[in-house]
Amino acid sequence: MRTQVAIVGAGPAGLLLAHLLHRGGVEAVVIETRSQEYVAARIRAGILESSSVELLESVGLGDRLRAEGHEHRGIYLQLPGERHHLDFVDLAGRSVWVYGQTEVQKDLVAAGTAQVFYEVSDVELHSLQEHPYVTFVDSSGVAQRLDAEVIAGCDGSFGPSRAAATPDQQFERVYPYSWLGILADVAPSTDELIYAWHPDGFALHSMRSETVSRLYLQVPNGTDTADWPDDRIWAELAKRLGHGQDGWKLTPGPVTDKSVLPMRSYVQTPMRRGRLFLAGDAAHIVPPTGAKGLNLAIADVTLLSRALVALLIDRDPRLADSYSDDALRRVWRCTHFSWWMTTMLHASGDPFDAQLQLSQLRWVTSSEAGATGLAENYAGLPIGF
Amino acid sequence: MRTQVAIVGAGPAGLLLAHLLHRGGVEAVVIETRSQEYVAARIRAGILESSSVELLESVGLGDRLRAEGHEHRGIYLQLPGERHHLDFVDLAGRSVWVYGQTEVQKDLVAAGTAQVFYEVSDVELHSLQEHPYVTFVDSSGVAQRLDAEVIAGCDGSFGPSRAAATPDQQFERVYPYSWLGILADVAPSTDELIYAWHPDGFALHSMRSETVSRLYLQVPNGTDTADWPDDRIWAELAKRLGHGQDGWKLTPGPVTDKSVLPMRSYVQTPMRRGRLFLAGDAAHIVPPTGAKGLNLAIADVTLLSRALVALLIDRDPRLADSYSDDALRRVWRCTHFSWWMTTMLHASGDPFDAQLQLSQLRWVTSSEAGATGLAENYAGLPIGF
Repeated sequence: MRTQVAIVGAGPAGLLLAHLLHRGGVEAVVIETRSQEYVAARIRAGILESSSVELLESVGLGDRLRAEGHEHRGIYLQLPGERHHLDFVDLAGRSVWVYGQTEVQKDLVAAGTAQVFYEVSDVELHSLQEHPYVTFVDSSGVAQRLDAEVIAGCDGSFGPSRAAATPDQQFERVYPYSWLGILADVAPSTDELIYAWHPDGFALHSMRSETVSRLYLQVPNGTDTADWPDDRIWAELAKRLGHGQDGWKLTPGPVTDKSVLPMRSYVQTPMRRGRLFLAGDAAHIVPPTGAKGLNLAIADVTLLSRALVALLIDRDPRLADSYSDDALRRVWRCTHFSWWMTTMLHASGDPFDAQLQLSQLRWVTSSEAGATGLAENYAGLPIGF
Repeated sequence: MRTQVAIVGAGPAGLLLAHLLHRGGVEAVVIETRSQEYVAARIRAGILESSSVELLESVGLGDRLRAEGHEHRGIYLQLPGERHHLDFVDLAGRSVWVYGQTEVQKDLVAAGTAQVFYEVSDVELHSLQEHPYVTFVDSSGVAQRLDAEVIAGCDGSFGPSRAAATPDQQFERVYPYSWLGILADVAPSTDELIYAWHPDGFALHSMRSETVSRLYLQVPNGTDTADWPDDRIWAELAKRLGHGQDGWKLTPGPVTDKSVLPMRSYVQTPMRRGRLFLAGDAAHIVPPTGAKGLNLAIADVTLLSRALVALLIDRDPRLADSYSDDALRRVWRCTHFSWWMTTMLHASGDPFDAQLQLSQLRWVTSSEAGATGLAENYAGLPIGF
């Protein structure tokens, strides 16, 4: 087989890249080791920055998002006994949207612009400096070779692209805590997300829809969900989120999913090696605090699609040559912001850290500059800033 | 002897407290283990926040400051190849003043409002819950007892007040680097302070007057000044401060003082025990980055003088009872800010930290909210905020 761009990975980064390339007149083939159903059901991020929403809308993927998604003007920041609202629209002129990654994925599949081979195996990338190609075994067990002008690695942190890109530098921070996350079939007890600092650890009340809540608790690394029956989770969430405070109540409900998420920051540079370009989690991982992972992937593939259209249609290599540097500016901004939100909100066990966090949170919630700094980073910068 | 307030320590905190009490009609006696000449010559901080300047001016200590001090509208933040000016007046409506602690000390001595026993020894604090008194041996070798209604511990981190206050909690962070500081008889090569991030470590170009420069280099803990002849210091300063960049030159000159300053954050709570009240370094230490130490001491004794006048003249204990909480709000704000400036600017040796720092500095120098956040903290909050 031959195509212009071989895309490894059919998550939102890979499918959106295929969609954007298709609109730009560039042909792409996507390969994915998982089944279509598995990828579609994977529970991941749920917050879209305003620039992500604008991008999806501008390429015909905004209808259901606008109809079924929920615009949020801001978030709540909570300290024991205090809940503060930060209004991003007032502070930074931008909102965010609650719309699950699973929904973005459905919209991309429904668009039908990507030619995808699901359930492939033995994926290998070859000849990255010139005439690159990908070999794999398709779902029927037939060995395939896909020749392309360019390979796009959109296969996340466990795919083969990351290592194939032979990074010059790798940057990593492993955090000494994880998130225990649940999905629950209950209406959210809040209109906007609550980020709660608590001496016993961070908690987050998020949501997926009017009937589905998503909640998280900071837990030690290595936590086993078996030690966290539903009652214990709801009791801990109630305590950390301030149930009873000023009459606010957390309403529990049936837990439909329960998992432990480790927290890690990772960046590898450059995001290009020869004819292989990395986008999204293949090049970088952020901890979930601040909801940057999916938004960064969208920003990456937006830049990459522009670069590849210029390269393959106009034969202009300039955007492709600057892609890594261009993408990394935003990657580092979001990596810093995610690290900052994470280390400001999670209990480290050090009493000095706890006092620094409280002083910082009090400043962020009382200073317009402090609140605006959080708002403009959370609601997101323009793509290509 | 008997007085209303026994003040331990004749540095700027102790002498300013005596001055403020004198103006409020409260009598105080100050004791100091060092000689007057030693205290006067001690080289310390050199930057006054606008609220410190206003306070000094409002109590008759502003004439020489306004005449001989230098108002600075802001600072420079430098990254390799980039120097950015942050204008505090534009950003936060407030300036800072360059006026050495030695000068503040001279003005306090010249005011003549404090009765001071210098070169005392064997200082001990007694009976803090009721009828407190201080014993010491005066400079003639005579044992003295000073009875008071209140003792004010203004004797820094090595004096006896800190331990006598038997803290409930102590918070500490020791940083893995120090500052090598020099005083040089040469006109500053810059109109405002330059805070420089450099992969080899932080550097700061500060000044004391039109003819005296004060410069600092990040060095490893345990550094011996003997390993840093003047030529090596100037060469390292030139590299880190960007000598030659855009035509800027660092002019070296005769080094008149050279010392190594360790970096530490420390807070002990509460700042009161019975009839003993702590102020300044006796209760808290900040690293020098961000220039908060002297300003915090001024804010502490301002609050404390108001509390003691209310307590001892009006017999109203409310401000004295809330003194510790009131002072600690600012202490933690400044402790956080100093920690933030320090960890943003100093090389830790971790490449991930370096990228976080660069991304944060680029945000601070390009976002109005980021710049304003730094400006309002650096230029200082109103006393009693």
